[in-house]
Amino acid sequence: MPKIVDHDARRREIIGVVWRLVAEEGIQSVTTRRIAEAAGFANGALLYYFPNKDAVLTAAFQHIFDATNQRADRADGNRRGLAGLRTLCQEIMPLDDERVTEARLAITFWQQALNSPEKAAIHARFMNQWRAEMSDRLREACADGEIPDLSSVDAVVDELLSMLMGLQILGVLSPNEATPQRQLAQLDEFFARLRGDVRG
Amino acid sequence: MPKIVDHDARRREIIGVVWRLVAEEGIQSVTTRRIAEAAGFANGALLYYFPNKDAVLTAAFQHIFDATNQRADRADGNRRGLAGLRTLCQEIMPLDDERVTEARLAITFWQQALNSPEKAAIHARFMNQWRAEMSDRLREACADGEIPDLSSVDAVVDELLSMLMGLQILGVLSPNEATPQRQLAQLDEFFARLRGDVRG
Repeated sequence: MPKIVDHDARRREIIGVVWRLVAEEGIQSVTTRRIAEAAGFANGALLYYFPNKDAVLTAAFQHIFDATNQRADRADGNRRGLAGLRTLCQEIMPLDDERVTEARLAITFWQQALNSPEKAAIHARFMNQWRAEMSDRLREACADGEIPDLSSVDAVVDELLSMLMGLQILGVLSPNEATPQRQLAQLDEFFARLRGDVRG
Repeated sequence: MPKIVDHDARRREIIGVVWRLVAEEGIQSVTTRRIAEAAGFANGALLYYFPNKDAVLTAAFQHIFDATNQRADRADGNRRGLAGLRTLCQEIMPLDDERVTEARLAITFWQQALNSPEKAAIHARFMNQWRAEMSDRLREACADGEIPDLSSVDAVVDELLSMLMGLQILGVLSPNEATPQRQLAQLDEFFARLRGDVRG
């Protein structure tokens, strides 16, 4: 009987190993050989799943995006309005070790995307998926009377997304300033403004 | 007579070549040999100024920070209050080809800083210099009656800095969304809020 292999599970297993390796040791020092070793695979078996380091990194970035969304789903499966928006934001922000590790990998992916139109397109696609979800949550918040009508939903989404992306960098590289506490205070301030509260 | 060499000018010349190479071709493909070639130096002569690629990248990042501040000085040598703050912000934002190139190099430096405490410290130092300047400008704006008193200057600086860092990524990797026009609208919105104008 042929051996039954759950290829999806194996891909996930490899990605799990990889994204920690990349985040902890840096993309420079991670080779397909090193990945195979850490995952307990023969090098040839690894290549069946990922032909090169580029493919591995792209899969790891996809994994971060999926993991972030899945955590938000677990925290609030029926995200709606302001509460739903906050849930998504908190899962994107580098507030704990897991999310800091994700941010480290995101920064690696961005650098690689500078000279890869394909990776840049993946990044833009993910950003646009988040933009769309954020816009939906804001429209719900307006419809539900949680916040006053917005003259431009896009402008608020621009503001939120740039804050969240900036926190990826500052949370990793300026941890003394961008502490979890100060990151959350910033998010609170953003939501207070949305509700029309005056800056204190 | 010994040949007179302006070492500082040569360093600047090399950095100018390097940071365009890194931004355009990516750090991966830039070697000290490639830098020497593009700068018209013998490889040995280059090593006199920069012992390795790491030293070159660090110098190029320093160059971006200095260039940003110098442009802000030229635009408004006596920066004060809100106008002075806006001048600095606009020079940091990736609003034109030069500043987009700088952002590309910043992203490269961040990725390298993930596994280099020395580079991370340089980044944190520059961020803290900007934090200090932004705090001064905000306190002046309060003192001059341009904006209402702030309960927390640090919180406003956190917000501004994360926005500016986020725009580095979005301006480079999501140029269709983070257009110069939308970046500037975001800055305008930030300043309108500081002045206490209600969100439109």
